[in-house]
Amino acid sequence: MSTHSNIASIKTGRSASALTPPHKPDHPLTSRSYKATQTVVDINGVTVGGKDIAVMAGPCSIESEEQIIRIAHEIKAAGATILRGGAFKPRTSPYDFQGLGEEGLEYLKAASIETGLPTITEVIDIQDVELIVEYADCIQIGSRNMQNYPLLREVGKTRKPVLLKRGLSATYSEFLLAAEYIMAGGNERVILCERGIRGISTDLRFTLDLNAVPYLKERTHLPVIVDPSHGTGAASLVPAMSRAAIACGADGLIIEAHYSPTESISDASQTISTATLAQVMKELSKVALAVGRRVTLPK
Amino acid sequence: MSTHSNIASIKTGRSASALTPPHKPDHPLTSRSYKATQTVVDINGVTVGGKDIAVMAGPCSIESEEQIIRIAHEIKAAGATILRGGAFKPRTSPYDFQGLGEEGLEYLKAASIETGLPTITEVIDIQDVELIVEYADCIQIGSRNMQNYPLLREVGKTRKPVLLKRGLSATYSEFLLAAEYIMAGGNERVILCERGIRGISTDLRFTLDLNAVPYLKERTHLPVIVDPSHGTGAASLVPAMSRAAIACGADGLIIEAHYSPTESISDASQTISTATLAQVMKELSKVALAVGRRVTLPK
Amino acid sequence: MSTHSNIASIKTGRSASALTPPHKPDHPLTSRSYKATQTVVDINGVTVGGKDIAVMAGPCSIESEEQIIRIAHEIKAAGATILRGGAFKPRTSPYDFQGLGEEGLEYLKAASIETGLPTITEVIDIQDVELIVEYADCIQIGSRNMQNYPLLREVGKTRKPVLLKRGLSATYSEFLLAAEYIMAGGNERVILCERGIRGISTDLRFTLDLNAVPYLKERTHLPVIVDPSHGTGAASLVPAMSRAAIACGADGLIIEAHYSPTESISDASQTISTATLAQVMKELSKVALAVGRRVTLPK
Amino acid sequence: MSTHSNIASIKTGRSASALTPPHKPDHPLTSRSYKATQTVVDINGVTVGGKDIAVMAGPCSIESEEQIIRIAHEIKAAGATILRGGAFKPRTSPYDFQGLGEEGLEYLKAASIETGLPTITEVIDIQDVELIVEYADCIQIGSRNMQNYPLLREVGKTRKPVLLKRGLSATYSEFLLAAEYIMAGGNERVILCERGIRGISTDLRFTLDLNAVPYLKERTHLPVIVDPSHGTGAASLVPAMSRAAIACGADGLIIEAHYSPTESISDASQTISTATLAQVMKELSKVALAVGRRVTLPK
Repeated sequence: MSTHSNIASIKTGRSASALTPPHKPDHPLTSRSYKATQTVVDINGVTVGGKDIAVMAGPCSIESEEQIIRIAHEIKAAGATILRGGAFKPRTSPYDFQGLGEEGLEYLKAASIETGLPTITEVIDIQDVELIVEYADCIQIGSRNMQNYPLLREVGKTRKPVLLKRGLSATYSEFLLAAEYIMAGGNERVILCERGIRGISTDLRFTLDLNAVPYLKERTHLPVIVDPSHGTGAASLVPAMSRAAIACGADGLIIEAHYSPTESISDASQTISTATLAQVMKELSKVALAVGRRVTLPK
Repeated sequence: MSTHSNIASIKTGRSASALTPPHKPDHPLTSRSYKATQTVVDINGVTVGGKDIAVMAGPCSIESEEQIIRIAHEIKAAGATILRGGAFKPRTSPYDFQGLGEEGLEYLKAASIETGLPTITEVIDIQDVELIVEYADCIQIGSRNMQNYPLLREVGKTRKPVLLKRGLSATYSEFLLAAEYIMAGGNERVILCERGIRGISTDLRFTLDLNAVPYLKERTHLPVIVDPSHGTGAASLVPAMSRAAIACGADGLIIEAHYSPTESISDASQTISTATLAQVMKELSKVALAVGRRVTLPK
Repeated sequence: MSTHSNIASIKTGRSASALTPPHKPDHPLTSRSYKATQTVVDINGVTVGGKDIAVMAGPCSIESEEQIIRIAHEIKAAGATILRGGAFKPRTSPYDFQGLGEEGLEYLKAASIETGLPTITEVIDIQDVELIVEYADCIQIGSRNMQNYPLLREVGKTRKPVLLKRGLSATYSEFLLAAEYIMAGGNERVILCERGIRGISTDLRFTLDLNAVPYLKERTHLPVIVDPSHGTGAASLVPAMSRAAIACGADGLIIEAHYSPTESISDASQTISTATLAQVMKELSKVALAVGRRVTLPK
Repeated sequence: MSTHSNIASIKTGRSASALTPPHKPDHPLTSRSYKATQTVVDINGVTVGGKDIAVMAGPCSIESEEQIIRIAHEIKAAGATILRGGAFKPRTSPYDFQGLGEEGLEYLKAASIETGLPTITEVIDIQDVELIVEYADCIQIGSRNMQNYPLLREVGKTRKPVLLKRGLSATYSEFLLAAEYIMAGGNERVILCERGIRGISTDLRFTLDLNAVPYLKERTHLPVIVDPSHGTGAASLVPAMSRAAIACGADGLIIEAHYSPTESISDASQTISTATLAQVMKELSKVALAVGRRVTLPK
């Protein structure tokens, strides 16, 4: 990959003179014209963007050490390869559970050590980036923060993989430009994640927009994964939409799973059981094969 | 299937007294509680809703006898099983080409006789229903007419299969209730078609909403197919979204295809070539197999 | 105004050769370049598009002769100048009340004779156009039928004023092109009506889009009115949004009003009382004055 | 107003036990049941929420000391009472002008001293809050940051007035809950601002949603203002939509104005000239009077 040292001069709010973008397209660093080959992001040994489909799974919120360790074992047995779990939760209401914070990160780390699974967790505060870099293998930027530019710049300074979720009403172009903020800081390990948009739907919480997958893959070299849990808000649709995501070219999935979804503190209605996850993984292995990709199931 | 003669009393605008719906759900006749088994609609020998994936293909507009016959041969060779072609075109502007009318229907019929493919074509005027019933094997109600109740009632009086497309901003419930208008007339041969909604997208013409597939299939016994051509408005996305549609459970597809898409009078940007269609069919046969369905390719 | 006999050749689906639009813009007949001066539509003595603000009011559905006559008297006393009432109701479900039909039209006519108010009522079936022309002074095309082209053409053949409501997800351009279908038939007495779009809102039934008013008035010579009842779906918002509509340049309003809103068979939650209407009319008279328009209150 | 010291225990991510909200509604502190009387926020002598309509005006970006001082004089002469100007700009692309930063704040302060106008400017980085508190009289939280919870909490710790803009696809409930984050920190000087949502519109950049004004004012005691510049993205619609905003009950406006809009570095197409602003203010004074509010024009 070419270096882009001239990008270091990205505008930081100190001069009115316009910067000429270093490459032609509106989203130079994320574009196929900057880098024709597919980017493969390595998350502590698990690749995203290569032949293997990456499946991240786990609870919405880390609730206790026992909970996250048990779930880690179960999603690993199901065939998932990366453990997700929220320690800092962005909640619509200030009165809802906001996550266990650093305590949660410790539990996540413990589950990772116990199972060997790499981990991903969300950052919502610029001041927590360093902490999360210490504990987790991949940093998640949630939908609400897709245009939180100081946060994008901060994770752009790290060399950790970053999962960037699409904003609820972001166009594809805005999504790519948000990724550009991270890459412009020198961190090229960015994974894009479609997670549902706010549409006309009143029947579902969100409208998972799978069109984003082939659209983005035409335009960017970055891996694209899909979140069918938030994307639909409905556990019963997760298996079908997971299969569809892989069929249209997604490089992976991030799925909310729990041994007992109804016990989840948050997102219970969109969380599937780890038993269902095991079934989904079997279906995905067939669909992956049909489209020239691979899901390796545990023996 | 149970009969529903009590439905014949559907309100026709002549009395203020409220009719008690004959069954409990809001959409009684289309619901799974009315009929638990999957409805299979037979279009002149080709089934929609069974194990076989039904692929309808053809040009947006029928332009000449040569054009539709040539396309019919080519889509048949590619593996599609039903021929689509518009004779009456609902156009946003009155100054755009409105279709060949009955002349087009004659060409469509000729192509059907020549290739043995059953046909589908759109009706936009209540006064043309009889004509279309005579010439085609399946009547299409387009998005703009999803809530054209007199038209729904009129096709409900026929015993022809009806393909009902979802309105551009229709909720799933409204979509099912539109189908209810047709079934309430006694015509139970209804196929639902997701064709893209108007969303936040400015990057694409429409947002194909595949969530509709598993959502509807949970609630209704009617077959559900997908239109990736109108749904995305972009030919390059059609292959990927076709695969995704089958992977999430769609019973079929309706695809705009032409031997030379750029020559199409209408919808050129979303029409794939018949050569691409042949490639798509091969991919679909693999995906269908992966999800327990079947696409039979010609030898 | 220039005649446009060359428009008579509007395409009716019989030839593939493209018709050159007679004027440059995409929506030639509705554009300001076709006619620079404001069109004033006369509905049996009440003008829409001139200095006077036209207020159409009445029940969603005509329920009985007593009901519509009583409401007619009350909305007249409040200061409204045109009586609205539905006889043919387009209902999402076939099991909901569909209107009294011709019986309702008779009651509407009786109320008109009794009070001297001109009337407006919706047509949903092409076969009812003649009937409605006989009974009412203005034909309403509802949102669901904004792109029902045969119906647009049919009312385009009459010389009755037509109120065309914007579709739930129609762009402004599509709205103007729908009006073009009517005008192309030779009927230039078209009034546009903004009635709320389907948006992200889950708090309200629809999103009244007042931006449509100044946007359309820049581009077209046709009068533009606003329906705050359907536009918001909430009676409590009707007074404020009515004032706003006039303030941004609307030529009138169409408001659902009933002496006892909770008794309405349909649309109860968005119907204001005739007592509230009287209060709204007083407020409107002040706002109208502030923007150089006029609302004349009864003494 | 009652104190709410029990709110200090707002959850900060350190415990899994759910906090009982101190009041009944979902958005306790912002609700009318918490405080029945209208909140009036004082921005250095100019009130928002009282009888007087507050008009904030100025350029999108502060470009130079001369520019902001000249604009300050001109908007004051037009009748605006608060000066707006961006020093830290949240830009979709990292390659676009990001604002002058602290240098811009100095120019804004200079313009304030010269004209006596209080000022408002946007904060996008939690680390700049202190700086902005020092230089400006009101802190703006932009749409992209409506759910940037650490930033909301940070401005909640200050005692400066905060203008909170609605997110591009935020429901009214989510908007109120975002304000709740600020108030929960003890800062009750919050002003809500409707600024346009992302809708079906392709004709306009955004859809200004004036329904938000009466809806919010029913539910909250906080002042509500409107941004017709971003809300429409079209300078020609600003006068009409400004009048409509006041007519439906808005407590003020925030308008992008420049002596020469086409020279603006950013947002040129939605910026009105200061000459137009003077005309708008005259129109607003009449509409304000019509609805029992007041705009005092300079002599």
